[in-house]
Amino acid sequence: MVEDCIFCKIVAKEAPASVLFEDDRVLAFMDILPINPGHLLVIPKEHLPELEDLDEELAGYLFKIALRLEKALRRSGLPVEGVNLFLADGEVAFQEVFHTHLHVIPRLKGDSFKITAAWSVSPTREELDRVAGQIRDAVKLLPG
Amino acid sequence: MVEDCIFCKIVAKEAPASVLFEDDRVLAFMDILPINPGHLLVIPKEHLPELEDLDEELAGYLFKIALRLEKALRRSGLPVEGVNLFLADGEVAFQEVFHTHLHVIPRLKGDSFKITAAWSVSPTREELDRVAGQIRDAVKLLPG
Repeated sequence: MVEDCIFCKIVAKEAPASVLFEDDRVLAFMDILPINPGHLLVIPKEHLPELEDLDEELAGYLFKIALRLEKALRRSGLPVEGVNLFLADGEVAFQEVFHTHLHVIPRLKGDSFKITAAWSVSPTREELDRVAGQIRDAVKLLPG
Repeated sequence: MVEDCIFCKIVAKEAPASVLFEDDRVLAFMDILPINPGHLLVIPKEHLPELEDLDEELAGYLFKIALRLEKALRRSGLPVEGVNLFLADGEVAFQEVFHTHLHVIPRLKGDSFKITAAWSVSPTREELDRVAGQIRDAVKLLPG
């Protein structure tokens, strides 16, 4: 547990939360600043600030629980017209709490959540292949 | 395979793609309209339009591969200052290709990707607990 981490405090029951799911590895609870009612978070219990700190197995488990809760959300009676799963890794990617968390966000037509991006011209296939090659080469460097 | 689905065509090798990973269940390849170089997609090979169509195990596996590629991306030499994982389920949530896909988006300071939301006042704990109760009740209704 990290002293000044609000999510660690929630895990330790030292801060309140409206809990949805809990086991030895994962905790899910309501976001206190929901984009729409039902907006929830799934976190590892361990203080793992970045994706880099997660192993594949735990990441997969986090997503498995997120899918379960997404399906429950759609059956809950709450208004849900769509869902976004969103994870921010790093400040530039809009991470605010540095304890990895996956958002499950119910969406409604006309709600306040907007994404904008100035998509440029599509790269050439050669450029895409070159970038893909760099990433494939890096996969070989991963431990395990 | 669904005839008019571009991702099914990529799976069937009837459309080009810069492939990063492939096995019997999952395919990962470069997004042709990247927000930044290295923007990639992870999809189930099967034509599963919505999250509702995925089972927990496959969802977990999709995310496991996404994490592996995210770690590779950060080791690839491409500029990566942060990463967003993003999945759009339903048109209102910005889904455009109706074959489930998980975005892994490298982020750079000052890039064009912006998220805005008019976060309202935090709900009361009673409201959050009530919503959490509705979702927990719905978990019990899920098959399996």
